[in-house]
Amino acid sequence: MNNGADHFLDIFFNPKSVAVVGASRNPDTVNFHLVGNLVKLKFQGKVYPVNPNAKEILGLKAYPSLLSIKDEIDIAVVSVPAMKTPDIVKECVERKVKGVVLTAGGFSEIGTKGKEAQNEMLRLLRESGIRATGPNSLSPINSRNNFIVSFGPVEKLPRGYLSFIFQSGLYEPRFNWLMSGFHLYLSKLLDLGNKMDVNECDGLEYLGNDPETKVIAMHLESVAGDGRKFMQLLSKITREKPVIVLKSGRTAAGARAASSHTGAIINSSDAVFDAVLRQSGAIRVLGLEEFFDLAKVFEYLPPLKNNRVAITTLPGGEAVITTDFCQIHGLVMAEPSPESCARLRDISPSWGIPANPFDMGVSSQFHPGINTYKAFLEALVDDPNIDCFAIHLGGWRHRAGQFAKIFSEVIKKGKPVVVWTADPRDGGGLIEELESYRVPVYPSAGRAIRALAALHQYHMIQERKYEQGTYV
Amino acid sequence: MNNGADHFLDIFFNPKSVAVVGASRNPDTVNFHLVGNLVKLKFQGKVYPVNPNAKEILGLKAYPSLLSIKDEIDIAVVSVPAMKTPDIVKECVERKVKGVVLTAGGFSEIGTKGKEAQNEMLRLLRESGIRATGPNSLSPINSRNNFIVSFGPVEKLPRGYLSFIFQSGLYEPRFNWLMSGFHLYLSKLLDLGNKMDVNECDGLEYLGNDPETKVIAMHLESVAGDGRKFMQLLSKITREKPVIVLKSGRTAAGARAASSHTGAIINSSDAVFDAVLRQSGAIRVLGLEEFFDLAKVFEYLPPLKNNRVAITTLPGGEAVITTDFCQIHGLVMAEPSPESCARLRDISPSWGIPANPFDMGVSSQFHPGINTYKAFLEALVDDPNIDCFAIHLGGWRHRAGQFAKIFSEVIKKGKPVVVWTADPRDGGGLIEELESYRVPVYPSAGRAIRALAALHQYHMIQERKYEQGTYV
Repeated sequence: MNNGADHFLDIFFNPKSVAVVGASRNPDTVNFHLVGNLVKLKFQGKVYPVNPNAKEILGLKAYPSLLSIKDEIDIAVVSVPAMKTPDIVKECVERKVKGVVLTAGGFSEIGTKGKEAQNEMLRLLRESGIRATGPNSLSPINSRNNFIVSFGPVEKLPRGYLSFIFQSGLYEPRFNWLMSGFHLYLSKLLDLGNKMDVNECDGLEYLGNDPETKVIAMHLESVAGDGRKFMQLLSKITREKPVIVLKSGRTAAGARAASSHTGAIINSSDAVFDAVLRQSGAIRVLGLEEFFDLAKVFEYLPPLKNNRVAITTLPGGEAVITTDFCQIHGLVMAEPSPESCARLRDISPSWGIPANPFDMGVSSQFHPGINTYKAFLEALVDDPNIDCFAIHLGGWRHRAGQFAKIFSEVIKKGKPVVVWTADPRDGGGLIEELESYRVPVYPSAGRAIRALAALHQYHMIQERKYEQGTYV
Repeated sequence: MNNGADHFLDIFFNPKSVAVVGASRNPDTVNFHLVGNLVKLKFQGKVYPVNPNAKEILGLKAYPSLLSIKDEIDIAVVSVPAMKTPDIVKECVERKVKGVVLTAGGFSEIGTKGKEAQNEMLRLLRESGIRATGPNSLSPINSRNNFIVSFGPVEKLPRGYLSFIFQSGLYEPRFNWLMSGFHLYLSKLLDLGNKMDVNECDGLEYLGNDPETKVIAMHLESVAGDGRKFMQLLSKITREKPVIVLKSGRTAAGARAASSHTGAIINSSDAVFDAVLRQSGAIRVLGLEEFFDLAKVFEYLPPLKNNRVAITTLPGGEAVITTDFCQIHGLVMAEPSPESCARLRDISPSWGIPANPFDMGVSSQFHPGINTYKAFLEALVDDPNIDCFAIHLGGWRHRAGQFAKIFSEVIKKGKPVVVWTADPRDGGGLIEELESYRVPVYPSAGRAIRALAALHQYHMIQERKYEQGTYV
C-alpha cells in the first residue's frame, strides 16, 4: 500500500497551521477547549485563535477574523452556530485555506432549510477545491502531533496504532475515559458528522494506507459514499489490518433516529449491509462495549493463528462460565502436553486437578507461599499445544507490576493473554499497570473471551481471503 | 404461599447460635473472617469460636472443641481441611446440632476417594436427621440478622429483597464489590457447593415462600434434585416472583470443567435444560454481567406492564444505538402525545427536534440555563403513551442528589427508569447517589436496555401463565 501522505485527508491530520474560528476565553464553554487542548497537549503547529472580542487567548495572539490572518492556513476549524457558519465558510474560500472542519449542528439533520444551507456551503467549497469535514462533527485527532478538535478538556493522547472513524460524536463524552481510564493507544480519529463532503470511503482510503494505523474501528449509521467502492476498500484493507464496524440504525426505529440527528438517509436493509460487511472481511459488533473491547485487543496483542486456549480462574465456577464462552466464540480448550501437566503438579493439591481449566483457587489454598500464576504460566508458556491464555485475577493490586511483567513476557513470545478481574474496582493500580504493558483487562469472562476470540476470527478472515478471494 | 419459617432451611438462615469450627485469630487467613464478619456486622445471635489453641477470638470466648460447648448449637460452620472434616461431622452428630455448613473442598470433586468420604458423612448426618450445606460451599448469608459465612472481609450487607442461590463460590471474590460498589440490596444467599444434601430444590422451596425475597437469582451447573420437582417449583414461583437462572456448563467443555470442581455430573443436554427453564417461566442469562444486571433491576424497579420507552441521550448517535437495542430486546419507541411534544418545545432548539429519542446534547446547547433532564421528565412522566424511560447521563456528579430525586419521583409513579453513563468513572458520586435511591445505573446502553426489557419480559411470563397455564 502507498503511504497515506499523498491523500487529500493528510492535511487534516497533519496541518502546519490551524485557525480556530469561535475560539473562546471562557473555560465554561465547549469552545474554550478547541484552543485549550492544542495548547495543553502542545500541538506541533501554529494556532491562530479567531475571536473579535479577544486580543489574546491562552497566550496566543487572537485575530478578529480569518481574513486578518496573513500567514498560510492549512486547516480552519469553524465552530460558530449554524446561522453564522456559511459566512465563515465564504471567508475560508477567500483565504484559500486547505481544509475546513465544521462543528456546528443545525444543517441537513433539521430538515429542508438546513439541507439547503448545507448544499450551498458544499457548492462554494467544491468550486474552490476545498475539502471539508462535518458539519456536526468533532475531529480530527492525531496523536502524533497532538492535533485535536474536541469540545471537552482532553488530558492526554496516548500514542498507538488504533484509528477510529465515527459518524457522529458518539465517542466525545467518553473520550477522556477511553484514553486515560480505558487505556486506548490512539493513532488517528475522524468524526464524519453529516458527511457533506468527506465520507467513510475517504477515511478508509486514508487510514488503510496509513502506516501508523494497525487497526481501524469504524462507527457508521449510513454509507454516504459509493457502496461498491466502500466494499472494495474494506476488502482490500482487511487483508492488511482488521476493521471493526459498529453499524447502528440496524432496526427501523434506529434508522429513523439516525435520520433525525445527522440527516442521513438509510436506504438499504440491514441484512444487505451485514452481508457486505461479512463478504469484505470486516468484523461487525453490536454495541459500544464490544466496539472498544475489540479495538483494544487488536491494538494490544499479537495475531492468533490457532485457537487453543489455556484458562485459569480463581473460583472453579468461573472456569465453567469461561469455558462456555470459549465454545460460543470459537476457541477450544487446549490440551497441555504431559510435560506441562507434570510441571503443574508443583502448584496442585495432592490429589491432582485438571490442567485446563486450572483452578487457581484450589491451587492457592495449598501453595500460598509461591506465586502460583507465575508458576502456571512458566509451566505452560512454551507448550506447542497452547496458543493463548485467559486469566482471571483477584484483587492483588499490590502485585500489579509483577503481574504486568509476567503476562507481557508471555505476550512477547507471541501468545496473546487476556485478563479479567473479579472486582472492577481493582482498577486502581492493577488495570492501569497491566494495560501500560498492553495486557488487556476486561470486567468479565464474557468480554475477555469475546476479545481474545476476535484475534482468531481475524486470522480466519485473512486466511480465507488469501485462499479464495472471498468467503462467507 | 406459606411463610418460609416452617422449612428445614430456616434454621440455616435464622440460627440463634452458631459454632465456628476452625475459627482463626490470624487476619491473614480466610478463616479469620468467619468470625470476623459476624462480629463486625453484629450478627444477632450467639457465636462460639472453636479453636483448641485460642482462649478468645475477637473478644469471644473460644472453645477447644464442639463437645466443650454446653449451650444449644443451631448451626455448626465446619471450616477445616477435608481430611479432618468427617471427624468434626461426627462431633456435630454427637452434639446434636440442627444444621451443618461444610466449607472444605476435596470431596466428590476429587474422585472416588473423596466421593466415598462425602457419602460416609452424608450417611451419618441422615441417620441423625441433621441437614448440611456443601461441602465446598460458602453460605448462608442473611442480611436481616447479618448471619454470614464468608472467607473475605465483608464491609456491609445492605438489606433488600434479592436472594441468590449459587452452585459454587462464584460470587465470593466479587461479593464486597456487589454489595458496596454495585449496590445490590440483599435478602439471602445460599451457596450449594457439591450439593451432598441440600440442593437447588430446597433453596427454591424456601426462597419461593420467603416474604423477604422479591426476586431469586440462581446460578447452577447441574440439577442434583428431582428434575420434575425442580420444574414444578420454578413454574409455581415464577407466578409470584421472577427467577433469573445462569446455567453454566452449557457446552461439552463447560460441563467437563464443572465436573472437575464440584463433582457434579451433568447428564442432560443443555437444550433440554433450556426448554425446561423456558416452560417454567425462568429467565435465562448467559454470563455474570447479565445475571447481576437483571438481579438488580428486578429488586430496584416496579413491574413493566407495557413496553413503550422514551429515550434521551447526550450525543445523538447514542440514541441510534439505544433504539437498536430496544428493538432487539422487545421494547418499542413510545409516541408521546401532542401535549407532551408541545411541552418539550421549551427545551428544544428553534427548528424542533423529535420527542423520542430526545437529543439532550442539542437541547443543552440551546438551553444551558435550565435543568433539561428535569424538564424532559416533567413533560413526559404523566403521558399515558409512555411506560418507562431510558436515560443517558454525562458526568454531572455535582448534581447527583438532584438527579436521584428527579428519577426516583418518576419511579414512584410506577414508571421504571434505567440510566447509563458515558464514563464509568463517574461512579464516584453519581452512581452511588442514584443507586441509593434504587435508580439503576449501567455502563452502557446495551446493558441498560437489556435490564429494562427484562421487566417487561417477566410481565409477559406472568400474563401467559395466568392465561394459558403454560407458554412457549
